[in-house]
Amino acid sequence: MFESFRTKGHNAGLPPGTLVCPESSGPVGPVKITLIDYNKQGYTEKEIKRIEDCFQAKDSKTVSWINIDGLNDIEMIEKLGEHFGIHPLILEDVLNTAQRPKIDEYEDYLFIVLRMLKYNEETESVDSEQVSLITGKNIVISFQERPGDVFGPIRDRISKGKGRIREGGADYLAYALIDAIVDNYFIIPEKYGEIIENIEDMLIREPTPEIFQSLHNLKREMIFLRKAVWPLREVISTMARGESKLIHKTTVLYLRDVYGHTIQVMDSVESFRDLLSGMVDMYMSSMSNRMNEVMKVLTVIATIFIPLTFIVGIYGMNFNYMPELGWKWAYFAVWGVMISIACAMVFYFRKRRWM
Amino acid sequence: MFESFRTKGHNAGLPPGTLVCPESSGPVGPVKITLIDYNKQGYTEKEIKRIEDCFQAKDSKTVSWINIDGLNDIEMIEKLGEHFGIHPLILEDVLNTAQRPKIDEYEDYLFIVLRMLKYNEETESVDSEQVSLITGKNIVISFQERPGDVFGPIRDRISKGKGRIREGGADYLAYALIDAIVDNYFIIPEKYGEIIENIEDMLIREPTPEIFQSLHNLKREMIFLRKAVWPLREVISTMARGESKLIHKTTVLYLRDVYGHTIQVMDSVESFRDLLSGMVDMYMSSMSNRMNEVMKVLTVIATIFIPLTFIVGIYGMNFNYMPELGWKWAYFAVWGVMISIACAMVFYFRKRRWM
Amino acid sequence: MFESFRTKGHNAGLPPGTLVCPESSGPVGPVKITLIDYNKQGYTEKEIKRIEDCFQAKDSKTVSWINIDGLNDIEMIEKLGEHFGIHPLILEDVLNTAQRPKIDEYEDYLFIVLRMLKYNEETESVDSEQVSLITGKNIVISFQERPGDVFGPIRDRISKGKGRIREGGADYLAYALIDAIVDNYFIIPEKYGEIIENIEDMLIREPTPEIFQSLHNLKREMIFLRKAVWPLREVISTMARGESKLIHKTTVLYLRDVYGHTIQVMDSVESFRDLLSGMVDMYMSSMSNRMNEVMKVLTVIATIFIPLTFIVGIYGMNFNYMPELGWKWAYFAVWGVMISIACAMVFYFRKRRWM
Amino acid sequence: MFESFRTKGHNAGLPPGTLVCPESSGPVGPVKITLIDYNKQGYTEKEIKRIEDCFQAKDSKTVSWINIDGLNDIEMIEKLGEHFGIHPLILEDVLNTAQRPKIDEYEDYLFIVLRMLKYNEETESVDSEQVSLITGKNIVISFQERPGDVFGPIRDRISKGKGRIREGGADYLAYALIDAIVDNYFIIPEKYGEIIENIEDMLIREPTPEIFQSLHNLKREMIFLRKAVWPLREVISTMARGESKLIHKTTVLYLRDVYGHTIQVMDSVESFRDLLSGMVDMYMSSMSNRMNEVMKVLTVIATIFIPLTFIVGIYGMNFNYMPELGWKWAYFAVWGVMISIACAMVFYFRKRRWM
Amino acid sequence: MFESFRTKGHNAGLPPGTLVCPESSGPVGPVKITLIDYNKQGYTEKEIKRIEDCFQAKDSKTVSWINIDGLNDIEMIEKLGEHFGIHPLILEDVLNTAQRPKIDEYEDYLFIVLRMLKYNEETESVDSEQVSLITGKNIVISFQERPGDVFGPIRDRISKGKGRIREGGADYLAYALIDAIVDNYFIIPEKYGEIIENIEDMLIREPTPEIFQSLHNLKREMIFLRKAVWPLREVISTMARGESKLIHKTTVLYLRDVYGHTIQVMDSVESFRDLLSGMVDMYMSSMSNRMNEVMKVLTVIATIFIPLTFIVGIYGMNFNYMPELGWKWAYFAVWGVMISIACAMVFYFRKRRWM
Repeated sequence: MFESFRTKGHNAGLPPGTLVCPESSGPVGPVKITLIDYNKQGYTEKEIKRIEDCFQAKDSKTVSWINIDGLNDIEMIEKLGEHFGIHPLILEDVLNTAQRPKIDEYEDYLFIVLRMLKYNEETESVDSEQVSLITGKNIVISFQERPGDVFGPIRDRISKGKGRIREGGADYLAYALIDAIVDNYFIIPEKYGEIIENIEDMLIREPTPEIFQSLHNLKREMIFLRKAVWPLREVISTMARGESKLIHKTTVLYLRDVYGHTIQVMDSVESFRDLLSGMVDMYMSSMSNRMNEVMKVLTVIATIFIPLTFIVGIYGMNFNYMPELGWKWAYFAVWGVMISIACAMVFYFRKRRWM
Repeated sequence: MFESFRTKGHNAGLPPGTLVCPESSGPVGPVKITLIDYNKQGYTEKEIKRIEDCFQAKDSKTVSWINIDGLNDIEMIEKLGEHFGIHPLILEDVLNTAQRPKIDEYEDYLFIVLRMLKYNEETESVDSEQVSLITGKNIVISFQERPGDVFGPIRDRISKGKGRIREGGADYLAYALIDAIVDNYFIIPEKYGEIIENIEDMLIREPTPEIFQSLHNLKREMIFLRKAVWPLREVISTMARGESKLIHKTTVLYLRDVYGHTIQVMDSVESFRDLLSGMVDMYMSSMSNRMNEVMKVLTVIATIFIPLTFIVGIYGMNFNYMPELGWKWAYFAVWGVMISIACAMVFYFRKRRWM
Repeated sequence: MFESFRTKGHNAGLPPGTLVCPESSGPVGPVKITLIDYNKQGYTEKEIKRIEDCFQAKDSKTVSWINIDGLNDIEMIEKLGEHFGIHPLILEDVLNTAQRPKIDEYEDYLFIVLRMLKYNEETESVDSEQVSLITGKNIVISFQERPGDVFGPIRDRISKGKGRIREGGADYLAYALIDAIVDNYFIIPEKYGEIIENIEDMLIREPTPEIFQSLHNLKREMIFLRKAVWPLREVISTMARGESKLIHKTTVLYLRDVYGHTIQVMDSVESFRDLLSGMVDMYMSSMSNRMNEVMKVLTVIATIFIPLTFIVGIYGMNFNYMPELGWKWAYFAVWGVMISIACAMVFYFRKRRWM
Repeated sequence: MFESFRTKGHNAGLPPGTLVCPESSGPVGPVKITLIDYNKQGYTEKEIKRIEDCFQAKDSKTVSWINIDGLNDIEMIEKLGEHFGIHPLILEDVLNTAQRPKIDEYEDYLFIVLRMLKYNEETESVDSEQVSLITGKNIVISFQERPGDVFGPIRDRISKGKGRIREGGADYLAYALIDAIVDNYFIIPEKYGEIIENIEDMLIREPTPEIFQSLHNLKREMIFLRKAVWPLREVISTMARGESKLIHKTTVLYLRDVYGHTIQVMDSVESFRDLLSGMVDMYMSSMSNRMNEVMKVLTVIATIFIPLTFIVGIYGMNFNYMPELGWKWAYFAVWGVMISIACAMVFYFRKRRWM
Repeated sequence: MFESFRTKGHNAGLPPGTLVCPESSGPVGPVKITLIDYNKQGYTEKEIKRIEDCFQAKDSKTVSWINIDGLNDIEMIEKLGEHFGIHPLILEDVLNTAQRPKIDEYEDYLFIVLRMLKYNEETESVDSEQVSLITGKNIVISFQERPGDVFGPIRDRISKGKGRIREGGADYLAYALIDAIVDNYFIIPEKYGEIIENIEDMLIREPTPEIFQSLHNLKREMIFLRKAVWPLREVISTMARGESKLIHKTTVLYLRDVYGHTIQVMDSVESFRDLLSGMVDMYMSSMSNRMNEVMKVLTVIATIFIPLTFIVGIYGMNFNYMPELGWKWAYFAVWGVMISIACAMVFYFRKRRWM
């Protein structure tokens, strides 16, 4: 998720609305366009090769969903924009894949930018992809960076006529897409919740610098998660306010539901942030705790033996006249004194709870 | 309370409004339905087996309270929803037991989600259960996850005709239920207040890692308590604003009262958070304090005896020509020197307040 | 002030509006009722025994101030409420002495809850008492937990006809009471300002755990002071907004003045919080400073004498063949070497500023 | 600046509007009154002895500026208030020199309280004085605590007819006074900017407790600077909103300009606060850094020589049968062993970068 | 970027609107004036020597862009202001190069102040220059402190008629200039993102005081970046609100786009701040970690050898009667005892994971 760090604007210097192919982070295959047309009665789905093949969708009475996977065919996107009357700034934003989630209301359509987040079990981090939705009357155009998405169940519901989706308009479809994206957000705090619990357990058992490193990484992930989810609240609340004539009253209820979901995700992210900063405190405290432990052992050993070593040093001196050296029981007396001192010290340390 | 960590949305991929049985955290008995019907004149309470038995409540003139304990009979809930004209999204939210407290206004009813919190003396933590209220004209439907609730006194007031409850409508009943839940919140800060006082005392007497662990746990509990109570403010202020035609003016006064209560609970939680973070500082400071103590003892012992040991070492050397060795009072002179050094050191440490 | 920690709602389970005697924290004498009646022309003040004796105040044209010290005579309060038409929820709030400052606007009166704070020189902490005001047309009813208040000067002004008070209505009287309470708040930051200055001086001279404890206690006091004063802003700004028909335009000017005072108190509390957290940093830093001092002494002594002790140890060995032992000036040479080493070390420590 | 700590309200107990002489922090000379009268055509300036001498200003057509230095002649201020119809609460606020900057709008005049801040090069701190402005139609009355102000250039502009000032009304004069005060604020962050830079340099070179003390003092100064400047934003934005009929449209432009200046000062103060807290971190880190340094030296010396001292101790034992003692090259062999150990240790410490 | 620290107001004491030459931080050449005139049909660009040469732009129908590099010719700026009817306060702000970004709406023009930021690869810091825009009907006047800007591509688009620019009015030109400036902001977080990643890597490998110093410097840079970008949000949102009659509806769409960009930059800056403070924690924790390491080595060595040194000290005593000294295998027995003790200690330290 780290790459989303580097925000990129459109290439500075170009006139606004100039389309520039996004630097793809990995190999990207050819652009794939799918057109789904449906109404209450029926449904057709086809993959199309030339963008012109979906131009009739503009005037058809059925709801059309044009999904575009891959953003490197600029010419095609320009044609699309021209035919459907999409503002060049929107097309520029579609191609700029470091957008902040946002909604722009135009006369004939809504333009919505979202982040599709997927927890990647392998890398144990979150994959992020930008999804742009253009919602007009009877038409939804969605742009994705890569093939592979979370919209499978929606396609399924359309094809099988499950739920309300075939009865709803383009606004309901847009809602369904947003809902699918937001529903997948829930998996992320769930995963992180588990990870945080594990780290907490480890922290209690034995804090290591590695655990602290994990804490730091988690904090960083939360910063980015927050950055992706926070603006979404505004996007959806703008839609749910019901002021746009493109959104039906019945859909507003559903949008309010999604709104609740985003707040719930945000709540979790905020709680995690609080928890993590508590755990940093905990790490720090157990560090200084361990230091205390180490120091106590050193102090106990040193303060017991240093005075004794001094005593034995005394009787190692070679003065000609040292009366004690000749006494018969002197050696044993010294032992006695030393044992007494050691015991007194141990007793003192016990009392201070250093042992 | 930790489990509320893992926020779960509705099963990603299903059409909105699809009902899914909540994963119960423990064994859940069969669903229990109670119907209470009352007006100024009279009152009936019965447990019903088939949901259809309460369908007549829809059109009766009396106020009906349908209470449902247990959420695993999806078919029953679907029937209920259909008969009373409840939006599928609401039913979905009822079953999704990780909801954030919220209020949704529909044409004919208000949908309210709350958390019922109970301090569990045994586990010394807070048990949390989701309560959903659907308030219509003359009807309140309440859903609980498990049997056992805080509504006993309300049932009592209805049956005995105590207070205003029999004269009020469904909105007053809804208020009474919310009030009962919020009243039980007060017990929690009271309990935590005691615990925090105890920990503070222990912290002053002797800080241990265990106490720090308790501090950390309390902070975590506060995060969750906050998460449960904070959104409630908005829920109740929405109701108390008096814009819904389902809420009578007289009830608004009562709701404003509950609103004051929730703010009071929030205030306490915020104060606790501040206090706890002050206590973390205190723990840290007393840690470094103890370290100082340990270091001082080590330093005092070591700096007194290390030079003395050096001196006795000198006269343990075996050089053939060491004039002092032959002097008569040398041994005692060395003792004198050593005692003087020790005294000077002790004096120095006293002055620096290390002893 | 710690006791205000434990927020108590009305006894959970009772119908709203049920009056429960507040748990008094100390012995409370019998309830004392005072009735002051005044207008421009004249003034009467009497202590009354039976609450019924002040019932005529309701319809009199003069301004009546009924002051009630002590909240344990529930029956009396109920009678009062009934006669003057006070909502049961208000009476419940009057008796619940852990209220947050608030204002509730009813049709015929304003209900205001405040905290009367007094700095107790003996315990060096702040005493807190709840004062409830019910302000109607021509009548103000005030409830206090205990006898003893800050209203003496107001009684004086009424009796002597000083200032505008006899010309003003009930709203001006309510203002005067609030003003008297807020004016006494100013003494508290003044006191704390002195205490904080003292602690700061001590912190610079010699930081001890006791000072840190004081810091912690002050922080706690600030949390509670803030909790008592913060909501007051809203209370007074609500009154000063001038929307209530119970408050005259001329009084609004005075209320705006009190509003300014509360903001000033809040400002001080916030500054104190900032200062205190800066002082915690200072304590921590001087702790680690002292540790550094201790460590330096240990290090200097140990690193000078440990090598020297090693050297004298060498010539304490009993090998048969150790050429140096026979050399004439060896002993003095060793002394020379040791003194050189010691001087070099001292020079090195001086350079590093450890001595 | 520390004294502004102790907020003082009006003497608790006195009726509102009672005038009390402010406790002067130093010796205050007699009150000095200056009256400046001007219009486009001409200008007169005179120092007056009796307040009655400026009473004619009320009805004159020229703009009058009455400036009063010193607040201890209460009788005079009362007369002034009575003649010009100033609300007693204003007069009370004028005399209460611990006011928060504020604006109060009355029917016929605006009452503005400001803090005049001057950086005192000698004490290296900020001197603060309260300035109150009463702006009516054609009249501005300004009150200052002490003689000496920043208004010299304004008097100059009036007398010489420079700029717009002689053409503007009383509102423009008020603006000019506020502008002069705010312009002097800019000098303060500039000074502090330099101080902070110096401290930062010293912190990098050698952190001492004295520097930390300076940091702490700067933080405290910032708290007070903020307290003085922050409310000013609101004061000026209230004026610049242009709702008062006392402020001409042309003046509003100028006020918006001053508003920009106050925001700029606030921005600097906030940046300084951020910087200072970063510098506290820096101090703390370099403290623990130094501790590390000290510990490393101790550890290196102790761990090299303690084992060696043990070895020489062995051959200092007096057992009758110790074969090594008789070996010819034993002494030199022991030297060899000890040098090897020392070298190995040095090598190990080098690797760990402790040397 | 540090110099922007020292905020400077206009010279205190001068009448508002007095023009003062900004203190230039480096050598500044003569003022350079460029006039670009264009409309849909054509385009002319000329460098002019006397300001009077561009006065005809005021009444021409084409869009005129007067760009002024260098602010030291006050006389020229005064003439310009007089001819185009620009308020003296604006001219003063143009010359005061420490302005906060702001927008002021006047009757006939908008006055916009921005910061042009450029990442300087050489000094590895950000260069900042103030750009002021005066946008009227058909005219844009831009002021820059120094020659050299980011407007090259715009000049290019005008001359070549690329994009919409020749069709748009003065408001579109103003937008284009702002857009060019904001686009260059994106490069800065990108650069800092890289630097932060590098520092993070170094921090994990080996934390040094130098890295902490870099962290501190980065934090400072962020404070200033924030100060430069934050107010921009308000500036652009004010413009995009579309209330000014000087801004066409079509341009509003573009402005909303720039608004999105500024928010994105702000988001990055905020994330960086969070990251940096996490990294400070990380540095602190690894510091105390290292201390722990050092202490452990000292403790292990000291606690192993100090008791052993005591033992060998015992048999170095010179008492006449010490039975062990005569025993045959005593010497070897002592070795055995010492090795056992050492092994036991090592075992204990292993168990505690100190070795």
